[in-house]
Amino acid sequence: MLKCTRCGKEYDERFILRCGCGGTLLVERNYFDFFGNLQPYLDMRRYINFLPISGSLLPPATPAITPVSELNLETVTAIFKLEYLQPSGSFKDRGTWVTVSKLLEEGIDEVAIDSSGNAALSLALYSLPANINVHVFLSYDARPEKISLLQRLGAVLHFIDGDRMKVHERAVEFSESEGITYASHWLNPYFIEGTKTAAFEAYEQVGVPDYVFAPTGSGTLLLGLWKGFFELRKMGVVSEIPRLIAVQASGYESLCERSPIQNLLADGIAIPEPPRREEMKRALQETGGTCVSVDEYETENALKWLRKAGFLVEPTSAVVLAALWELVETGEIPDGSKILLPLTGSGLKLTQGI
Amino acid sequence: MLKCTRCGKEYDERFILRCGCGGTLLVERNYFDFFGNLQPYLDMRRYINFLPISGSLLPPATPAITPVSELNLETVTAIFKLEYLQPSGSFKDRGTWVTVSKLLEEGIDEVAIDSSGNAALSLALYSLPANINVHVFLSYDARPEKISLLQRLGAVLHFIDGDRMKVHERAVEFSESEGITYASHWLNPYFIEGTKTAAFEAYEQVGVPDYVFAPTGSGTLLLGLWKGFFELRKMGVVSEIPRLIAVQASGYESLCERSPIQNLLADGIAIPEPPRREEMKRALQETGGTCVSVDEYETENALKWLRKAGFLVEPTSAVVLAALWELVETGEIPDGSKILLPLTGSGLKLTQGI
Repeated sequence: MLKCTRCGKEYDERFILRCGCGGTLLVERNYFDFFGNLQPYLDMRRYINFLPISGSLLPPATPAITPVSELNLETVTAIFKLEYLQPSGSFKDRGTWVTVSKLLEEGIDEVAIDSSGNAALSLALYSLPANINVHVFLSYDARPEKISLLQRLGAVLHFIDGDRMKVHERAVEFSESEGITYASHWLNPYFIEGTKTAAFEAYEQVGVPDYVFAPTGSGTLLLGLWKGFFELRKMGVVSEIPRLIAVQASGYESLCERSPIQNLLADGIAIPEPPRREEMKRALQETGGTCVSVDEYETENALKWLRKAGFLVEPTSAVVLAALWELVETGEIPDGSKILLPLTGSGLKLTQGI
Repeated sequence: MLKCTRCGKEYDERFILRCGCGGTLLVERNYFDFFGNLQPYLDMRRYINFLPISGSLLPPATPAITPVSELNLETVTAIFKLEYLQPSGSFKDRGTWVTVSKLLEEGIDEVAIDSSGNAALSLALYSLPANINVHVFLSYDARPEKISLLQRLGAVLHFIDGDRMKVHERAVEFSESEGITYASHWLNPYFIEGTKTAAFEAYEQVGVPDYVFAPTGSGTLLLGLWKGFFELRKMGVVSEIPRLIAVQASGYESLCERSPIQNLLADGIAIPEPPRREEMKRALQETGGTCVSVDEYETENALKWLRKAGFLVEPTSAVVLAALWELVETGEIPDGSKILLPLTGSGLKLTQGI
C-alpha cells in the first residue's frame, strides 16, 4: 500500500503522488527474509521481490549493479559507488525503471515531469520502448548537452522562464489542466523504491558503512538510501542504519542554513524547496546524521580530484567528496570510519563540463 | 606464461607484445574450479583469480558487471549485454583495468597507443590515478568529442595524416625510437585477459548462448569472448563454446570479403589489417562461426532501433544487431536460438552522433 508521510492515511498502490492532506506518499510493504528473496541476477532484477511491481512489464535497459571502489582518504575509508554507470548516465535510472514499469502496469501513456536534466533524460529514455509520451518542463538555463539529448529522445520540451520552483509549479499546472499524469521524481513513491536498491547493493558489497553521504536536492537518493537500510533493519539483516549526511549546494539549502552565495556548478541539487523536506529531516534525525553545504570552489576541487582518480562524473556528483573533506577536517568524522559516497551522474554527457 | 600464437614459444609474464618471430602473444595459465575461485564481489574483481595480475595494484574505477536484457526478436532471443556501462563508456575498460594494473606492477610509467577513440579514452582515464603518461596516436578525422575528452584527461595527442594503419605504424615507430612502451590493445595479451571476463559474466548471467556476436576490428572483444568461453570449457564448467560471429564494417573487412563501399559510421572497427587476424580466423573456425559485413545504412537502422529500445550506444555498437537481422532473414540462425549481443560503446559521449 501507499502511506501518507504526514497523516498516515493509506491508499492502494496506484500511481498517485500526494495524499488528500497534501502529504507525500511512500510505499509500505512488509518484507521478510532478504537473502531468501534475492533473485539470481547480477543486475537490478536481483531485488525485484522488494519492488512494488509485478515484474511482467519491465523496460529492457535493466539498471546495473554498480561497482564500488574503496580508497583510503586521510584517516577514513571512502567507498565510492559508481552510480553513474547506468543506461542514461545517472542513478535516476533505478527510480525510473520501477516508475515506468508501474506506469505500464497502470496503462498510463502520457506523463509530465520537471527536471534540471538527469531525471528527465532518464524518464525520456525509458519511456521510448514503453511508448509513453513525455513532457519535460525545464528552465532556459538547463545544460545544452542535456537539452540536445532530450530532443533526440523525443521528449516534448516546455521551456519555462523562471527558477527551479517556478518550473515545478508550471509542470503541476499543466498536468492538472491537461489531465496528464504528473510523474515527478520529487513526489513519486515508486521512484524511491528504485533508489532504495542502491542501499541493498551497498550492503551486499561492503556491509553497513558508518556514514552514507548523498547529494541532496529533492532527496530521492537520500530517502532511497534511508528506506533501503531501514528495510534491511526491519528484515533483521542489519542492526544499525548508517548515519546519513545530506550534502547540499550552497545558496539552495533546504536542510542546512541558507548561504548567501549560490553554487551554480552543482545544478542537479539546486532545489530550494523540496516537497519531501520533512521526511529528509526525519531521516537525518533518526540516523544521527547531519547536513553539509558545499560551495562552487569546493565542488570544483572535488571534481578535479575525482577525475584524477578515474571517476568521470558531473559536478553535482562531486559534492559528497567535498563534504567528506570538510567533516574529516573539522574532526566530526572519527578516524577509521567507513563512508559510502555514491557518485550519481556521468560526466560523459557534459563534454564541456568535466 | 605468455605463449606465441604462431610458433608456440613461451615467455615469462612481462609486458611484451610480440614474439621474436613476430607472432602475437596470449596469456596461458591453467585454471581449475571456476565457482570455487569466484570472489564475493559484484564487480569485475569477482574474476580476479583468473587474471594475470596480483590484485595489489588495481586502478580505483573497477569495471562493472554489466546488465543483460533479453528480448524476443522475430524468431530468436537476443540477449543484449550493456558493455557500455563502464567508467570510460566502453567495454575497453575491462582490458585497460588489467593492463594498467600490470603496467603498475612492472613499474612502467609512460606508454604509447594508437586508437580511433575508445581504447585511448579508456587508457587515458585509467592512467591518471596510476601516474602513467599516455601518448595517443590518432588520425585527424577522429570524433571531436573524443579528442576533447582525451585532452581533458591529459593525454599527449599525436595527430597523424593518414589512415588507421598509418597511425598504427607511426605509434610503433615512435615507441621504438623513444624507448617508450607500446601498449596497443591490438597486440597486448593482458587486454584480452580483461575482455574475457565478459564471457565469464555472460555465462553466470544466461548460461551458454548459441551464438555470440561481436563488433570486430582489431578483435580484442571477439578474442576475449572466445578465450573466456574456452577457459570455461577447459575448467569443465561448460561443454560447448558458442558459435562466434565476427561483425565487421563494410569496406574494412579483414575476415569477410572486402566490400567496395565504406561504412564510415562504425568507426570503432574500421581496421582493415588487424595483427591478430589469424587468431580470429581460428576462433571462427573452431566454434563453427562466421563473419558478417554491415554497411552504413544497416548500422544506422540498427542504431535507431537500439535507441528506441532504451540503449544509448554509439554507431559501432549497432552493427551486431544489423548482423543478427541479416542472419535471421537468410535463415542461417535457427528459430529459438539464444544470441548474445554485447553493446560495446556509450552514446553519451557523442552528443552529435546518436
